[in-house]
Amino acid sequence: MATYLAKPDNLQTPVSASDIVRFGVIGYGYWGPNVVRNLDQLDRSRVVAVSDKSSSALKRVAKSYPHVTVSSDSAEIISSPEIDAIAVVTPVWTHYELTKAALENGKHVFVEKPFTTDARQAEELIDLAARKNLKIMVDHTFLFTGAVKKIQQLLEQGTLGKLYYYDSTRVNLGLFQHDVNVLWDLAPHDLSIMDFLIKESPEAIVATGQTHLNGLEDVAFITVYFPDKMIAHLNVNWLSPVKVRTTLIGGEKKMLVWNDLEADEKIKVYDRGVSVTSREGLYNLLVNYRSGDMWAPQIEQVEALHQELAYFVDCITKDETPMNDGKAGLRVVKMLEAATKSLRQRGALVYL
Amino acid sequence: MATYLAKPDNLQTPVSASDIVRFGVIGYGYWGPNVVRNLDQLDRSRVVAVSDKSSSALKRVAKSYPHVTVSSDSAEIISSPEIDAIAVVTPVWTHYELTKAALENGKHVFVEKPFTTDARQAEELIDLAARKNLKIMVDHTFLFTGAVKKIQQLLEQGTLGKLYYYDSTRVNLGLFQHDVNVLWDLAPHDLSIMDFLIKESPEAIVATGQTHLNGLEDVAFITVYFPDKMIAHLNVNWLSPVKVRTTLIGGEKKMLVWNDLEADEKIKVYDRGVSVTSREGLYNLLVNYRSGDMWAPQIEQVEALHQELAYFVDCITKDETPMNDGKAGLRVVKMLEAATKSLRQRGALVYL
Amino acid sequence: MATYLAKPDNLQTPVSASDIVRFGVIGYGYWGPNVVRNLDQLDRSRVVAVSDKSSSALKRVAKSYPHVTVSSDSAEIISSPEIDAIAVVTPVWTHYELTKAALENGKHVFVEKPFTTDARQAEELIDLAARKNLKIMVDHTFLFTGAVKKIQQLLEQGTLGKLYYYDSTRVNLGLFQHDVNVLWDLAPHDLSIMDFLIKESPEAIVATGQTHLNGLEDVAFITVYFPDKMIAHLNVNWLSPVKVRTTLIGGEKKMLVWNDLEADEKIKVYDRGVSVTSREGLYNLLVNYRSGDMWAPQIEQVEALHQELAYFVDCITKDETPMNDGKAGLRVVKMLEAATKSLRQRGALVYL
Amino acid sequence: MATYLAKPDNLQTPVSASDIVRFGVIGYGYWGPNVVRNLDQLDRSRVVAVSDKSSSALKRVAKSYPHVTVSSDSAEIISSPEIDAIAVVTPVWTHYELTKAALENGKHVFVEKPFTTDARQAEELIDLAARKNLKIMVDHTFLFTGAVKKIQQLLEQGTLGKLYYYDSTRVNLGLFQHDVNVLWDLAPHDLSIMDFLIKESPEAIVATGQTHLNGLEDVAFITVYFPDKMIAHLNVNWLSPVKVRTTLIGGEKKMLVWNDLEADEKIKVYDRGVSVTSREGLYNLLVNYRSGDMWAPQIEQVEALHQELAYFVDCITKDETPMNDGKAGLRVVKMLEAATKSLRQRGALVYL
Repeated sequence: MATYLAKPDNLQTPVSASDIVRFGVIGYGYWGPNVVRNLDQLDRSRVVAVSDKSSSALKRVAKSYPHVTVSSDSAEIISSPEIDAIAVVTPVWTHYELTKAALENGKHVFVEKPFTTDARQAEELIDLAARKNLKIMVDHTFLFTGAVKKIQQLLEQGTLGKLYYYDSTRVNLGLFQHDVNVLWDLAPHDLSIMDFLIKESPEAIVATGQTHLNGLEDVAFITVYFPDKMIAHLNVNWLSPVKVRTTLIGGEKKMLVWNDLEADEKIKVYDRGVSVTSREGLYNLLVNYRSGDMWAPQIEQVEALHQELAYFVDCITKDETPMNDGKAGLRVVKMLEAATKSLRQRGALVYL
Repeated sequence: MATYLAKPDNLQTPVSASDIVRFGVIGYGYWGPNVVRNLDQLDRSRVVAVSDKSSSALKRVAKSYPHVTVSSDSAEIISSPEIDAIAVVTPVWTHYELTKAALENGKHVFVEKPFTTDARQAEELIDLAARKNLKIMVDHTFLFTGAVKKIQQLLEQGTLGKLYYYDSTRVNLGLFQHDVNVLWDLAPHDLSIMDFLIKESPEAIVATGQTHLNGLEDVAFITVYFPDKMIAHLNVNWLSPVKVRTTLIGGEKKMLVWNDLEADEKIKVYDRGVSVTSREGLYNLLVNYRSGDMWAPQIEQVEALHQELAYFVDCITKDETPMNDGKAGLRVVKMLEAATKSLRQRGALVYL
Repeated sequence: MATYLAKPDNLQTPVSASDIVRFGVIGYGYWGPNVVRNLDQLDRSRVVAVSDKSSSALKRVAKSYPHVTVSSDSAEIISSPEIDAIAVVTPVWTHYELTKAALENGKHVFVEKPFTTDARQAEELIDLAARKNLKIMVDHTFLFTGAVKKIQQLLEQGTLGKLYYYDSTRVNLGLFQHDVNVLWDLAPHDLSIMDFLIKESPEAIVATGQTHLNGLEDVAFITVYFPDKMIAHLNVNWLSPVKVRTTLIGGEKKMLVWNDLEADEKIKVYDRGVSVTSREGLYNLLVNYRSGDMWAPQIEQVEALHQELAYFVDCITKDETPMNDGKAGLRVVKMLEAATKSLRQRGALVYL
Repeated sequence: MATYLAKPDNLQTPVSASDIVRFGVIGYGYWGPNVVRNLDQLDRSRVVAVSDKSSSALKRVAKSYPHVTVSSDSAEIISSPEIDAIAVVTPVWTHYELTKAALENGKHVFVEKPFTTDARQAEELIDLAARKNLKIMVDHTFLFTGAVKKIQQLLEQGTLGKLYYYDSTRVNLGLFQHDVNVLWDLAPHDLSIMDFLIKESPEAIVATGQTHLNGLEDVAFITVYFPDKMIAHLNVNWLSPVKVRTTLIGGEKKMLVWNDLEADEKIKVYDRGVSVTSREGLYNLLVNYRSGDMWAPQIEQVEALHQELAYFVDCITKDETPMNDGKAGLRVVKMLEAATKSLRQRGALVYL
């Protein structure tokens, strides 16, 4: 990568696969330490510098990673010629500015989800990266978990048949955010997973919810209409006494339950379903239930973030477009925007 | 009761407490046998006659209850001078006609939920019963379970503090109905419980959902807006591979989880919550989390239907108005009507 | 059967299959009502008479089954020429006398488990029945559950491979018995299931336990040694705050967990195991773990007692020996005797 | 500590509280990295050197802790004047030699459980440490978990009343050990917890079990008899398809279930019990069941090893005897020896 950055006039040449991608990480709060640890462990990447506003955060970096430069000024890192890629691990309202500056300085960007606070920003960043031939990867970490990969396989193989619904419950106590409501905090997980799993594009969104404490919605319910009678629903809540991470996916042939809190058996596939034999008129419909075995496939046990960052390094060195690129980030932001609009109008249907 | 019916000109006189209420039961399908069994076991009631369209159902009655008159014609039962009260245990579209006929024949009526298919019918029946000084009880069975009674106590004692939300998931595979969608089939349970537990009147409803098989919605999501930022949400689904009966209730002081499928420990009360200390401006809000013990109160183990029917007999003999009277039935029907209207308009806000 | 009883000199001739087996039931406490209900529902059996010491029990019989003769004197029933078979549903210390009298009066006997209080009694009854060409069936109800039948299939098909261990936990609060300890109360379930599932004969037993309240052991732990390194273990406890009904079965190829308290998914088969590659000496053993999918086969949903009684009626009318005959009952009693002996000697090894 | 070690003639003077305890760690396999990480994080301790036979282990140390000396020779570390205390994190058969050498070199010792392979060794080490005024702490980590501390409090406060039984199930798939059987591998956890929680001394042990694969028992069941009818039971198994970590503790007043695999609600206290009212003779005993609320106390969330090592550093600097000292280690070893002896004789009662 060093040579790559030394030859800015030759952007089309992918870097040699043997090169190391040098990272600057901005933000060392809750998630930043995981990003730094994984980048540090990968063979093909190196963490050169970390910045954070908090001096105690920087002290923690210095203690764990004595070889890493620390700085309270992100601009230093963004402009450093020693750095090939920036990881933006900061609150969402800072993503646009930091990502833009990083791209303008010729850095690839790994950015937390949600990508930006609105679609316009996301589009601008996508364009800028394209012009500069730089990669954007939005941290849709769940796509790299064993569970989501297994579900994706099952869907691709047609195991579930035509999809009827996707219904996720993602509730727990806190953490309250100051800058985003529960929808922008928790729903990006589900929306990015749905964006990955469901081939059809969503048509419209209805969202309801309520604020109770600090003026931001802490409870929200989102319905997403897809073509061909597929429907999705999300239940996100910061005020639940118990943690729930359960998704039901119903298909014509089979149905599955994904309980992400189970240590083993995260995914259970049920050989259950309903079929209707139509005869003459409503009262002659014959509904047949099918009830059979349940099956819990072995799930790959991996640290998703590790795989995601390895994939990002690969995409950079091989000059390939990540599946969770800026466009994927934009699709999620568009759904969040639509849901917010609907929420403010108490469930008004908002087309995408 | 016999003397009571013999003196129609003296309706104001409550029957003597020693009297037996004589029942005719219309409908002996899924739920009817439970109604008959419980009425047969009560000291103060007697089942005189049962009617059903199905001859095999009537055979089953004759085998188990040789002393009971059976008939394929409900009109016979409704007009019988030997009968004081009618239990209407039939599909919802028949409730209005049967209840009306029963009331016109001077019978008290115990009727399955939902009360009627529209509010107008319910209002007409309420008026008719009032004019005739007859009781209507709508079979909101859940109000008589140990779990709902315990929750009601906790709310009344202020254990949970001001309510923030009520969130119920009621999903399973089937049973598909020919005449009602999943909303009219499953939501009456939750709506009647909410009507009982929540003192405030609901303001507006948003419902979304989808049909997949026979033209009736098999998946639906309902949000109910209450005054003062209380919000309720129901998730009902006939296409779930697993059965879920879980309600989260969040309050300012405590939160509870009611899992009706647990054998013991149906209700867990969590000493968890969030409070916000406001200082200056949004970024100075201080959110405090409280996490403490969990407590599962002992729940009364009773057959709810038994208690409900005993209460109905009491209301008749003591001339008292049941809490789950026609008006309670009407309130649930109004919510179902509003939800249906919203569902058909993909989430339009419908005021109540 | 009527003709059969009329021709005592012609015992070899099986009764015609179209005949009805007429039952007398002795004991109408906890389990008796289930026996009566099922015998009453079967096409090919009829309950003629029920006896119990308690007059309130007899009143309940009379209310539910007006056509059945009731009596406080079991001898009347045992000697009735109207009766072909006796169901002995009484405490264990009465089994021997009642069964003996029934056999002497030419009746087939269905008797609660454990069969008798000692092996000598069991042997005498088996001999008597053989001489009289009468059937004894010991009520090992669990053999007729969907779960045990499925496990038996899996074992027969070799799905689990060579068996390593069978480990059952059967604990709950009470019911304390006056006449038997927890071992004689709860262990017969497991011992009869093991007798059915495991082809090898047990070699020796070690039992430990403790009395705490009324002089009878309320906690007991039993180890059963089988040939070829198969080992079984039972944990029975009347003083557990929670109810547990879980059996682990480990085999060379696969392992299973049977949780009888699960509504669905009672049996989970795990594609997990361990194999050892032996090289030279202990420290060169190579242990290989295999971890794979889990699979929960669909279990037949039936009332086990219904199937068992239907099978008993079949065995009588077809003159066939039940699998859960007196000999099976004897094998269980021998294990109980050995366990009791070991328990009294604090774990002494008792050979079978 | 440096001054302390420089003044061996002045052993009575506790080191100043501001001193740092300098550690050498022997063994960097499965558990060693946790010991090193925690010692490194404590304010009052420092890891000076780590030894392991494996060069790849030493490479991992060097990468994570560049400031730590690594060595393949444990003798170097044991004799180093720069070191105050040795952590022995190696297989059990090496504990005696390494601990002895460390004590002889004037080092305090933190040693993995089980303490030694036999009681004689343990006694010798205890004597040696006493003569040298050095501390031994046996790593009974569980004593420092929030769950065990909470149970200890409940017992001390008399919440459960007189203890009836302690029943632990600790089963999972592997890991197979080459040098110890399942009893020496898994039972030390339970035996050390019991040693901590139960005030009475155990009287006798019965153990049964079986070898299946490599000549070492992989399934074992241990009964421990205590005075006054208290009984304990352990079920340990390396061949279970599922992981179970559940302990039932039954007392006269209340009973508790400790499920260590639960994220929250690890301990549930049940207001359930049984009492017997004695009248005249066995058949007049009156057993009363009490069934009430369940309560899950909030459990402290801490890393037990962190607390344990901080406590060890405290014991050294304040010259105090740890509760989990060599004598506690010895008591556990004696129970393991007795259990092994019983196991080899198929359940023979072995007195302690």
